[in-house]
Amino acid sequence: MTRMVTDLSALNGAERGTFVAALGGIFENAPWVAERVVASRPFATVADLHRAMVEAVAASGEAQQLDLIRGHPELGSKVGQAPAMTIESRSEQGGLGLDRLSEAEFARFNELNAAYRARFGFPFIICVRRHTRDSILAEFARRLANAPPQERAAALEEIGYITRLRLVEAVDGPGKPKTDGRLSTHVLDTVSGKPAAGVRVILTERGASAESVLAQTATNADGRTDAPLIGGAPLRIGTYEIAFHIGAYFAAKGVTAARPPFLDVVPIRFAIAEPEGHYHVPLLASPWSYSTYRGS
Amino acid sequence: MTRMVTDLSALNGAERGTFVAALGGIFENAPWVAERVVASRPFATVADLHRAMVEAVAASGEAQQLDLIRGHPELGSKVGQAPAMTIESRSEQGGLGLDRLSEAEFARFNELNAAYRARFGFPFIICVRRHTRDSILAEFARRLANAPPQERAAALEEIGYITRLRLVEAVDGPGKPKTDGRLSTHVLDTVSGKPAAGVRVILTERGASAESVLAQTATNADGRTDAPLIGGAPLRIGTYEIAFHIGAYFAAKGVTAARPPFLDVVPIRFAIAEPEGHYHVPLLASPWSYSTYRGS
Amino acid sequence: MTRMVTDLSALNGAERGTFVAALGGIFENAPWVAERVVASRPFATVADLHRAMVEAVAASGEAQQLDLIRGHPELGSKVGQAPAMTIESRSEQGGLGLDRLSEAEFARFNELNAAYRARFGFPFIICVRRHTRDSILAEFARRLANAPPQERAAALEEIGYITRLRLVEAVDGPGKPKTDGRLSTHVLDTVSGKPAAGVRVILTERGASAESVLAQTATNADGRTDAPLIGGAPLRIGTYEIAFHIGAYFAAKGVTAARPPFLDVVPIRFAIAEPEGHYHVPLLASPWSYSTYRGS
Amino acid sequence: MTRMVTDLSALNGAERGTFVAALGGIFENAPWVAERVVASRPFATVADLHRAMVEAVAASGEAQQLDLIRGHPELGSKVGQAPAMTIESRSEQGGLGLDRLSEAEFARFNELNAAYRARFGFPFIICVRRHTRDSILAEFARRLANAPPQERAAALEEIGYITRLRLVEAVDGPGKPKTDGRLSTHVLDTVSGKPAAGVRVILTERGASAESVLAQTATNADGRTDAPLIGGAPLRIGTYEIAFHIGAYFAAKGVTAARPPFLDVVPIRFAIAEPEGHYHVPLLASPWSYSTYRGS
Repeated sequence: MTRMVTDLSALNGAERGTFVAALGGIFENAPWVAERVVASRPFATVADLHRAMVEAVAASGEAQQLDLIRGHPELGSKVGQAPAMTIESRSEQGGLGLDRLSEAEFARFNELNAAYRARFGFPFIICVRRHTRDSILAEFARRLANAPPQERAAALEEIGYITRLRLVEAVDGPGKPKTDGRLSTHVLDTVSGKPAAGVRVILTERGASAESVLAQTATNADGRTDAPLIGGAPLRIGTYEIAFHIGAYFAAKGVTAARPPFLDVVPIRFAIAEPEGHYHVPLLASPWSYSTYRGS
Repeated sequence: MTRMVTDLSALNGAERGTFVAALGGIFENAPWVAERVVASRPFATVADLHRAMVEAVAASGEAQQLDLIRGHPELGSKVGQAPAMTIESRSEQGGLGLDRLSEAEFARFNELNAAYRARFGFPFIICVRRHTRDSILAEFARRLANAPPQERAAALEEIGYITRLRLVEAVDGPGKPKTDGRLSTHVLDTVSGKPAAGVRVILTERGASAESVLAQTATNADGRTDAPLIGGAPLRIGTYEIAFHIGAYFAAKGVTAARPPFLDVVPIRFAIAEPEGHYHVPLLASPWSYSTYRGS
Repeated sequence: MTRMVTDLSALNGAERGTFVAALGGIFENAPWVAERVVASRPFATVADLHRAMVEAVAASGEAQQLDLIRGHPELGSKVGQAPAMTIESRSEQGGLGLDRLSEAEFARFNELNAAYRARFGFPFIICVRRHTRDSILAEFARRLANAPPQERAAALEEIGYITRLRLVEAVDGPGKPKTDGRLSTHVLDTVSGKPAAGVRVILTERGASAESVLAQTATNADGRTDAPLIGGAPLRIGTYEIAFHIGAYFAAKGVTAARPPFLDVVPIRFAIAEPEGHYHVPLLASPWSYSTYRGS
Repeated sequence: MTRMVTDLSALNGAERGTFVAALGGIFENAPWVAERVVASRPFATVADLHRAMVEAVAASGEAQQLDLIRGHPELGSKVGQAPAMTIESRSEQGGLGLDRLSEAEFARFNELNAAYRARFGFPFIICVRRHTRDSILAEFARRLANAPPQERAAALEEIGYITRLRLVEAVDGPGKPKTDGRLSTHVLDTVSGKPAAGVRVILTERGASAESVLAQTATNADGRTDAPLIGGAPLRIGTYEIAFHIGAYFAAKGVTAARPPFLDVVPIRFAIAEPEGHYHVPLLASPWSYSTYRGS
């Protein structure tokens, strides 16, 4: 998909129509949000522009907010079944595989969508790029128990996340709000007091129904990976496991160990809760002991 | 199965025939081993008795050792297919499920048995009560590469383990050789500086083809389990995982954490290499960090 | 000093006069406490006897409690200056060296005693066997800020600790209340995954004015010390440091390290707050890393 | 002291006399070293220039090397007592306080200098900027046991360190050899899983005769110190201690702890052996446990 990217400075100086044409799709099926901030230009930063749009929604009143919410597609809609779905929604849901659900998963999403719509009268909205399938299902269950006003606020908060990501991609300029997270690691060999180089590191997402390998790499001379295990995007809320192959590492170094070695593949399982955060998950290991922690 | 247990003192004073009848089955189809130590009585300890029997085998020469080795059943023989299999062998192999192999596993064992017999001219002997299926297969592969004299020594060493276990169960008396191992754990809550009570702990054996739950329990007020996770028998060489449910523990204590919690189920994966050893595998944990080590 | 020890069963059956003679000195200059519990005999446990005496004090009313409190000597009184001091008080204060204070320390204690007496009208009472000089001074300062009723309660609580210790030493029998604490350690070598044997361990008390060595020993084959570092008595509230000589240990094992080694003498500094508690302070160490925690 | 700094490019193009005038003092009282490398110009890097000078010394033969060695002042010479001491030597020895030795220390250095000179016939040379007083005394003792050829090599190695530092300060240009080390720390709060901000951190050098505070600071929002604890110079080989005031930190955060807190000031004692290395010495702490390691 080609995406048009505009400069904030150009938007600040553009005709009203050009401005609205450029940003009308940021809020799903709601070009009026862009219209309402035209007069507040110029915006010093992309974050200011987004804040103004969010505040325009907040000021628009319950009826219009409900319209905005109702303008979103249902989660897990198969392409072709939700005609009003924007290009942006298609891309976002596609990234998680929500357009390639199995029949059983599709049924489960349909069931939750129906229960949710019956309770609240609008579709379940969540910023899918900040979630794994598991955390979406967990949020679905949790939010179904909300009172309606609380849930409207939750939906608007998610719309804030969705549009922040869209705006950051659609507009270039200073002061972009932070939307990326980062997962990194390093391995320290406590026998030699040095970074452990050449340790195989495998990152998987652990879902209720499946595990998928997200990264396979090895530590470099610094005991780190050349690139973050995840970066350049929001981290998806969910459960992960890093497998550190330290048995092979110590064997290659000739460090004597038992047969089989007490520690071979060390799994570190953890959850990510802050999509825009930095999670540093190191391993300090000898052939007989290790520790880990959330670092920064 | 009822097992006759005799006192060492009774054996020391028994008629030759009684002695041989009692201990004739310790060495598989080789009552001559018992016969050769009759004259060395009295034995001060059960360990002395076993040592004498092992030395009688060592002194018997290559031909008789080969006869002894050949008197053992093939591993994984289905009951009914190995008519000369002693009651003891049946019981030992049954404990590991070797008499309930799937067709594929049976085929794999048959193949290894055939390759082994072709190479060495005798059946593969291993003290199955010290092994998991995985470690048996690993040993099979490793020992297939041995030179014949080295492999005869390996077979005799395994016969030593097998008969030591049999003797310890057949004879009561002082100075029993150590045949039991122990796996224990404890959980320390580093936020409160106290033992973590009520932490769910699940021990699984991790095999190539399957995982099986060996123990499900919870820590007591001391942060330990009321009984060892494994005890009262040799530990089986193999890979294990203890899952510590510390997310639920900290949630119940009201320790604030992320949603989802950074650490929920902490898996500690390790191998046991010494069946008669004590493996203490503790967890020191906060909601954001933990460490483990092989303790004692 | 010879101490008369009586059996609880003998006390339960003794003449009233014998009972009071035996226990009249437990509460300082207050044989009436023993008198009041005579009629409550028999006591099933030593703890029950102590509890009854403490309750007799609690029931005696403010005036008599103040008499009891005033019957105690001032802390740091030089022998010969406090004629009514019981043998027990002399022994207890002597253990901490309070009868061997320097002139400056004596002056400091006198000053605090005077300020305390001016504020509360009775001497400062503290169970010295549960304290170091430093923690006594800290408690002095803290308790000077108490309101009078709060401070009377604090004094009675300390009398409870003092008399519990005296009773445990004066009376033999079942159900002795716990008065002993324990400080223990162990050292684990994370390079070899084994207990570290032969590590020199030195325990010092760290006071504001001086440090004193309380124990010098070495770890045994289990990585522990043959005897607890402190045991058989209450632990004194205060600050301690254990120095673990792991540099020499790893050098002797031939584990390569830097020159000078990164870690040589590892000091672990900690405070004890619960005199009757068990403090286990282990060290898990490689030549380049270590961890410690309060265990149990 | 004003120091003349010259550009490498200027030196590469300078007259022979200018070149020798600029670099004649790099090797103590030995302008001939500079003379011998004139013809090897141009040097691409400062490191190349230094290497060439060191090789000129290596190629000069034992007699001239001994002259070079003998041209150095004795360590600990009081200013005014060693007339041939260069400005550079005065500055270097002054940094360690070797020109302000107490009478006892001066006597000790004199004694060692005399023993050394008697054994080898030349003064003891050591790059003082890479050492503490303690490590100088340790090296003195260690090197006194060397055989003469080994010790000549040791002296030349130290001259290499001395001149590398001098050259890096005298000449600007690309490819400077690494002469600086760095000591850094960070503190992680394992209760909250976040960097510990505002922890007081005090670094001391621990000498045999005295301790001196090298840095007093506090951790920033990242749990690090704004500047390295030591940086911008070689680290001095020796023993150090960082005191982390985590008791006050946790008290300020309202984390409940004992009175007195189990951990208050945590001392981490370690040695530096590589003056040009990076020593990262972090603390991961809860109120009841901590760990540290040499990181990078």
